[in-house]
Amino acid sequence: MRITLPIILSFLLASIHGISFGQDADSAQIKKISDDIFINGTAYKNLYTLCKKVGPRLSGSPQAELAITYTKKMLEAAGADTVYLQPCMVPNWKRGAKESAYIEMANGKRTYLKICALGNSVGTGSKGIETSIIEVKSFDELKQLGSETIKGHIVFFNFEMNPTYVRTFMAYGESGIARRQGPSMSAKYGAIGAIVRSLASNEDNFPHTGVTTYDDSFPKIPAVAISTNDAIFLSKQIKLRMQHRVFIQTNCSMQGNVLSYNVIGEIRGSKWPEKIITVGGHLDSWDLAEGAHDDGAGIVQSIEIIRALKKNGITPNHTIRAVMFMNEENGGAGADAYFKNAKEKNEKHLFALESDAGGFTPRGLSIDVNENQFNKILQWKPLLQPYGLYEFSKGGSGADIGQLKELGAALAGMQPDSQRYFDVHHASTDVFESVSKRELNLGAINMTAIVYLIDKYGL
Amino acid sequence: MRITLPIILSFLLASIHGISFGQDADSAQIKKISDDIFINGTAYKNLYTLCKKVGPRLSGSPQAELAITYTKKMLEAAGADTVYLQPCMVPNWKRGAKESAYIEMANGKRTYLKICALGNSVGTGSKGIETSIIEVKSFDELKQLGSETIKGHIVFFNFEMNPTYVRTFMAYGESGIARRQGPSMSAKYGAIGAIVRSLASNEDNFPHTGVTTYDDSFPKIPAVAISTNDAIFLSKQIKLRMQHRVFIQTNCSMQGNVLSYNVIGEIRGSKWPEKIITVGGHLDSWDLAEGAHDDGAGIVQSIEIIRALKKNGITPNHTIRAVMFMNEENGGAGADAYFKNAKEKNEKHLFALESDAGGFTPRGLSIDVNENQFNKILQWKPLLQPYGLYEFSKGGSGADIGQLKELGAALAGMQPDSQRYFDVHHASTDVFESVSKRELNLGAINMTAIVYLIDKYGL
Repeated sequence: MRITLPIILSFLLASIHGISFGQDADSAQIKKISDDIFINGTAYKNLYTLCKKVGPRLSGSPQAELAITYTKKMLEAAGADTVYLQPCMVPNWKRGAKESAYIEMANGKRTYLKICALGNSVGTGSKGIETSIIEVKSFDELKQLGSETIKGHIVFFNFEMNPTYVRTFMAYGESGIARRQGPSMSAKYGAIGAIVRSLASNEDNFPHTGVTTYDDSFPKIPAVAISTNDAIFLSKQIKLRMQHRVFIQTNCSMQGNVLSYNVIGEIRGSKWPEKIITVGGHLDSWDLAEGAHDDGAGIVQSIEIIRALKKNGITPNHTIRAVMFMNEENGGAGADAYFKNAKEKNEKHLFALESDAGGFTPRGLSIDVNENQFNKILQWKPLLQPYGLYEFSKGGSGADIGQLKELGAALAGMQPDSQRYFDVHHASTDVFESVSKRELNLGAINMTAIVYLIDKYGL
Repeated sequence: MRITLPIILSFLLASIHGISFGQDADSAQIKKISDDIFINGTAYKNLYTLCKKVGPRLSGSPQAELAITYTKKMLEAAGADTVYLQPCMVPNWKRGAKESAYIEMANGKRTYLKICALGNSVGTGSKGIETSIIEVKSFDELKQLGSETIKGHIVFFNFEMNPTYVRTFMAYGESGIARRQGPSMSAKYGAIGAIVRSLASNEDNFPHTGVTTYDDSFPKIPAVAISTNDAIFLSKQIKLRMQHRVFIQTNCSMQGNVLSYNVIGEIRGSKWPEKIITVGGHLDSWDLAEGAHDDGAGIVQSIEIIRALKKNGITPNHTIRAVMFMNEENGGAGADAYFKNAKEKNEKHLFALESDAGGFTPRGLSIDVNENQFNKILQWKPLLQPYGLYEFSKGGSGADIGQLKELGAALAGMQPDSQRYFDVHHASTDVFESVSKRELNLGAINMTAIVYLIDKYGL
């Protein structure tokens, strides 16, 4: 594309449109923050460290410990007044040695499938399991087949993510039921294993993991994900030839609980230090990925808020806390510890903001507040729209801060563009290279602006 | 990220918010279009063909001819009533054999630089040019140095793209002056060559090409781009040691004009076939890249509009024309031919829409219309916002359709998110893999919806 003068003018016009006179000072302050983050921001560099020097950091792993050390240093470098660790007991689930699976046809031909055990699942043991497979596309279908058909078999949950939702989280919520509840649902009917189609919005060769939750009423059966391409292949094979055997071997196991930590960095409030604004993401990631989007992005953006406020000489009225929550992926122990601690200390929580939907270009904010607070936030739209934040909706905030509502906190969750999230989510493709520096920074800019406004005007 | 019920509800609420009762039928029709494109869309597959089977397709090259053949077939497969070629004479600029460059210090140490000749530039000849280099950061600086310093040297235009613009096209427009006018500006003062820092928003090792325009008043001197990393390195070296020589060799040349074509596919209007709605992108790309974002995306989205209208049984009132413009990058001959032809035939052009800012997630529309038309378009915002189109601003449309204003056409240009565009723009990294299928489709959905609304309600 070439550039013409009318195009340049249109950008200029759009960027000054909609700001009322009274908001000029805030507009200038936010512009200053934005310029600083675009020029001096450290989020991208910190993300590189988290992805490449630490890497995958599942709760309880040595890398999770390393992530604690590194982010503590990052918060100190960002200029936090206080940096400390908050203990929590996290599950220590291990994937174990190599996983393998194949389908063998009646003619003896084997095709290997790329699998990964679902988080928190039990393993097959060293002998693996081998039996025929039953494909289902809904829980209704599973019920109709019942114990008679299911018993002794492996159930293949081929729940495709609905591609027609513009907001891909809708499809994740809907089809994700297979991963979360499918294994136990099939165990109820006597299944001895479960294979789940990956929750991926594209057709690729990478299995996407994620947690499954066992219902204690039924036996715990081994559960794995396969890539979308393998799911399509498997479904075709099952339709073509009824006679087949499927073999799965996984070596994962839950190895009790171990001590870990949330990492917290604070700027102490100048007027009301006892009132707290929390910003955060989660420090743990799945073991397969670098956790760049999920949720390295949220971590480095939260640290960036501290740096940007300090660097720009903004002394907050309230205490600003950047929290790196541990164990969001397979337990939520960090969120529980943070909430429990706050409750015990009778802390006053004004507001909490979570970034855990990827480091993509910002789109909107999902806001869990009362009507008056919502209207107050809407008045700031003209200040945030120049940075891409247009979609303000009432809704949930995020898994790590949700409980703070009980303490009276207003809550919000960043909603970046979701088109690319489930290409990489929980898979080995969620790496540093999949993150755009400018998109990541733009997210941090919006988060800092929101914190700045709420700190200044309250809610 | 895990998903909670409030989060799902918030997405549902946001997606139905803002649609007035009277727009229900249009909302349903657009949803039908959207579902169809997400499920059956061929834009991504066509882009693969254009990038991987055709590849780089600079005007006048054999691949540009191949692109004409392929897109003609694609338009036929999409169901266009008529597909035809519109001749135009395009410049036949060739990069020629391997390009090379190095800087040699006083101690004899050479460091090679990765360069690419700027489009339409002259070559150095087989001996290359070797002299010392003068760095400038503005045209003012160039003027101040004047002939006394510049004469006989190579000028290094180290114009960094301003990272603080949220809309990256602003920075491109501003710093791009170095590439477009720098070589001739320096020739005015006797420079014998020009090196331009790539117009890239990230620090990488890829030179980004693009057209330079010679001013006939001054000698045509060889002009090349270097990567941002090499620009940073070069600048440091120049500061460190004054004594150095720089060598450049390029083998490019303009080899006259050759016959080429725009490719046009039409659906004939049922009520007013004589009134035309044009949608388009450009078929040519730079020779270094697959031209995935620039502008394969615009091409396959324009074809997709034809397919989606046909597939969904929408019989347009006006004639809908999808135009694959040839030679946008280094001449604009296709745009000129289309305009000249339309003017000669006294065609009535109602509206034209261009997509030439990448296949990224849609953000907005830059609209070149009168006040009444603008207000009419604004009424459709609630219909388009669920698909991500929030930013409606007055401004220019695009290089290929701009002239149609003279024929009374209302104009608009798609404005997708611009954060990642200048990572790949005009460089070897603008490949199929850098395009997200969902983002590309979402652009096509919005374009089809706009065409549907304008065809139904006029402007």
